[in-house]
Amino acid sequence: MTRSFLAKPDPKLDLVLERVIDVPRALVWAAWTKPEHVKHWLTPRPWTVSECEIDLRPGGMFRFVNRSPKGKDFPYVTCYLEVIEQERLVWTNALLPGYRPAQSSTPGVPLFTAIISMEARGTGTHYVATAMHRDKAECRQHEEMGFHDGWGTALDQLVAHAKTT
Amino acid sequence: MTRSFLAKPDPKLDLVLERVIDVPRALVWAAWTKPEHVKHWLTPRPWTVSECEIDLRPGGMFRFVNRSPKGKDFPYVTCYLEVIEQERLVWTNALLPGYRPAQSSTPGVPLFTAIISMEARGTGTHYVATAMHRDKAECRQHEEMGFHDGWGTALDQLVAHAKTT
Repeated sequence: MTRSFLAKPDPKLDLVLERVIDVPRALVWAAWTKPEHVKHWLTPRPWTVSECEIDLRPGGMFRFVNRSPKGKDFPYVTCYLEVIEQERLVWTNALLPGYRPAQSSTPGVPLFTAIISMEARGTGTHYVATAMHRDKAECRQHEEMGFHDGWGTALDQLVAHAKTT
Repeated sequence: MTRSFLAKPDPKLDLVLERVIDVPRALVWAAWTKPEHVKHWLTPRPWTVSECEIDLRPGGMFRFVNRSPKGKDFPYVTCYLEVIEQERLVWTNALLPGYRPAQSSTPGVPLFTAIISMEARGTGTHYVATAMHRDKAECRQHEEMGFHDGWGTALDQLVAHAKTT
């Protein structure tokens, strides 16, 4: 199959988290693709993931609900675009499952496409998570929601969870 | 590779053109995937396709410009989601090439995802073109722009063009 086209991240529009972590790539993949794992780490505590549903194929659903400490739910219904085992996962909330264009974004929930890349690095993994936005305003909004701390803390939680499995 | 998930068309949100045409599947595929062919048929005359650019892979660009008889250009920049040779082509203007969420839709240009399916039927092709929209209003807008006549006439032009090649 022809390799897909991925643009280089644009610093004005995209947010990137890059780190080498001491977790084998197979476990990083499992952490992202099995609901029973996702629930343990995807949202920085004291927030929780109250629901997660995965249909792991292009066009398939990746749905999760982030619950605030006060019990308010923030649902994300997204569509997988690429599922390349232990290598890359791409999903977006700009499309619903089956590739239908999504309604305008929910207030407080920016539209973005996530590209999660992983490469073996010794016994660990070189991990890169990119969030691509349609404009500067939504990129800044996502940053102000705490992208770097949030996705970084979530990754710490992924590492801690992987060590228990 | 796992088969992708495609939802069944929703009559309230989607427009479908289905027809058996007397053109071999390989030529239908070529008509959709080579700019020099696309320019001959994609837009019903007296409109023309003034430009076409194709990077035929998931995430790649499918860009075309429809020119009105008065010379007004209507550009479409879309992103391929699936490229399955002689079987299915999926693209959307809800994403830019590289999967970035697109800006809000241009006035007069509804957001949609197109699924072009083709199956050999004798020496011809069973052809199904589906346009999926995010809401009823944009579906109706696309219908009122002349989807059925427009895509049907374009398909007539594809058939006529294929017979010359």
